[in-house]
Amino acid sequence: MKIYLAGPEVFLPDAQEIGAAKKAICAEYGLEGLFPLDGGLDLSGLTQRQSGLAIYEANIALIEAAAGCIANVTPFRGPSLDAGTAYEIGHMRGLGKPVYAYSNDARPFAARTRHFCGVSGERDNDGILIEDFGLTDNLMIDGAAARSGSAIICADKAGALDDLAVFRACAAHAAEMLLGARA
Amino acid sequence: MKIYLAGPEVFLPDAQEIGAAKKAICAEYGLEGLFPLDGGLDLSGLTQRQSGLAIYEANIALIEAAAGCIANVTPFRGPSLDAGTAYEIGHMRGLGKPVYAYSNDARPFAARTRHFCGVSGERDNDGILIEDFGLTDNLMIDGAAARSGSAIICADKAGALDDLAVFRACAAHAAEMLLGARA
Repeated sequence: MKIYLAGPEVFLPDAQEIGAAKKAICAEYGLEGLFPLDGGLDLSGLTQRQSGLAIYEANIALIEAAAGCIANVTPFRGPSLDAGTAYEIGHMRGLGKPVYAYSNDARPFAARTRHFCGVSGERDNDGILIEDFGLTDNLMIDGAAARSGSAIICADKAGALDDLAVFRACAAHAAEMLLGARA
Repeated sequence: MKIYLAGPEVFLPDAQEIGAAKKAICAEYGLEGLFPLDGGLDLSGLTQRQSGLAIYEANIALIEAAAGCIANVTPFRGPSLDAGTAYEIGHMRGLGKPVYAYSNDARPFAARTRHFCGVSGERDNDGILIEDFGLTDNLMIDGAAARSGSAIICADKAGALDDLAVFRACAAHAAEMLLGARA
């Protein structure tokens, strides 16, 4: 069973190696991981913009081919997850497919946001609300996991984007949910 | 025709007023705006977590009722859009519905990200790639607009979350796409 591997790993210096490591872990649990760089796209002759949109289409094709996704929602350049990952979680849910997610930052969303904004109260210095439902990220992200019959798996790995211990736990969970249900 | 109004306005001090103003503009163009706070949810007796998940479900019901969405992708606490908005754009696309989007920050994503990271090259100080396709945000966001037959409408409004001039232009565009196609 195919599972899409959403996350900001594609931006890391060793993206291909991490993708391969994630796919190997998936295989241990009977899942076929689909990594966003798998498309093997030929972008020659395309403008920057055309290249970006071609990658979008390739990622959507992988999302459509998968039975669900495992998303790395570890904070990325701010208090929330990577924007592309948030999009992909939404697209999966719009297709009615389950989302399994993990974070290598154990702090609640509100604590991270307060730290980012340098405040301790309910609002930032512009009077904008700090979302505080005791969740891992914006409620649409936690909601996606909840609606998939799951919850975001978190552990304190100092926010490392490439630590795979929690990913492994999430892959085991996804396999139990997806393959257990099929068996 | 119903259109979902995605964006971080729900966190602003005058969220209800901005929601009402957006709905009034939509009505001028023959569209019925659905604002995330419309649900009129009774959260009494619920825990924080239950409240957050109930809001998720209410927002999903509005997304499912809408023919498409207008998304405010102005950067929010970091170089990218609000995570909940990114999710909702994805959910809409997963449902096969069009996404019209606008930003009150005219800078390309790469320039904003470099500014946020304090670098000028291709990678941040941790060696993590700065996505650079000349797009407005992560390629999954621009791709969603492109796949909807559109492009993100941007103007320099100093990143103000509540400036509605570009929203108006986006509402006019959405009406032309949605109602023009129906006529």
